[in-house]
Amino acid sequence: MSTPLSDAALDQLFREARTYNGYLDRPVNEEQLHQLWDLLKMGPTSANQLPARIIWCTSPEARERLAAHVSASNKPKLHSAPVCAIVAMDIDFHEQLPWLFPHADAKSWFANDEELRKLSALRNSTLQGAYLILAARALGLDCGPMSGFDNEAVDKDFLADHPRWKSNFLCTIGYGDRSSIFQRSPRPDFDTFNSIL
Amino acid sequence: MSTPLSDAALDQLFREARTYNGYLDRPVNEEQLHQLWDLLKMGPTSANQLPARIIWCTSPEARERLAAHVSASNKPKLHSAPVCAIVAMDIDFHEQLPWLFPHADAKSWFANDEELRKLSALRNSTLQGAYLILAARALGLDCGPMSGFDNEAVDKDFLADHPRWKSNFLCTIGYGDRSSIFQRSPRPDFDTFNSIL
Repeated sequence: MSTPLSDAALDQLFREARTYNGYLDRPVNEEQLHQLWDLLKMGPTSANQLPARIIWCTSPEARERLAAHVSASNKPKLHSAPVCAIVAMDIDFHEQLPWLFPHADAKSWFANDEELRKLSALRNSTLQGAYLILAARALGLDCGPMSGFDNEAVDKDFLADHPRWKSNFLCTIGYGDRSSIFQRSPRPDFDTFNSIL
Repeated sequence: MSTPLSDAALDQLFREARTYNGYLDRPVNEEQLHQLWDLLKMGPTSANQLPARIIWCTSPEARERLAAHVSASNKPKLHSAPVCAIVAMDIDFHEQLPWLFPHADAKSWFANDEELRKLSALRNSTLQGAYLILAARALGLDCGPMSGFDNEAVDKDFLADHPRWKSNFLCTIGYGDRSSIFQRSPRPDFDTFNSIL
């Protein structure tokens, strides 16, 4: 049982945080990527699947390669951001369950059902991607998630050694340039998309 | 550009937070559900799709109805938790884009591609479900996400008035009973599932 975080923390995580399209010329170091992983890995996934596989593109060469596969409007973001994470997922995550979920034979729940694995990998690696976004903000970083890219081309170029890994979405990370954000899109009131039973 | 949150806040959000299987006899009120929505709705979704539709089951009757559709091991959680959210998604979210994303004709990107809408609704409503989990923790609440349930039965029972809404996952919410948590499952080191390019 905890108390609510401060208003300043809620602002940083949710209310004042924005999606950035450009970043300041300020590096993000490897230690920060480790800090991000050490937070996001703690978030819950079904049967501790942890299906996300993350390729952190930090060198100008890697970001340039990735830029070749994203939509025109997303290309400049890859040049400006010090880091762009490829949030991928392992369709064969069940192979890791004997050590990730030692409480039960969870591997057998998925072994003969690739459709279930695809659904589960997508859902749970997306949860992890959201934990990444909020972990970045919690650590004082800004980010810009993107799904406007050619998944197959990214898989071929970056995941060729892992034929069972598929890209899910991308997320730029850095110290955001406030001048790069768009006008805030509308957010609906509770009653629009919620009901209480 | 922000500073990192305090260690206590990072503990509350990620490091010390756990998935609860039982809850204290302490209510969660409607105002808290509104607070949850007002935080989680601020999280980013692709083209501001906001495809999640949330049914908050709070009455004993609604939770009992929902309990009929979950796996045996999940049933007691529905009785113990003061709230269980059905995180659903609108496959026809694109109908809302003219007002949710007024910057561009985003509706046309999805109008003739139901497969793309299904993928996008699943990915983005899952992001919103993760924002819900972390918003709950940020507000001092505990939660227990679940995917062990009969999606079709939940859709028939709870979403019959909205044939284009489909259930994604469930999440109990309340003040967690520490005696109900399982032993922490392993969390891998950075090098296991990450690489830096």
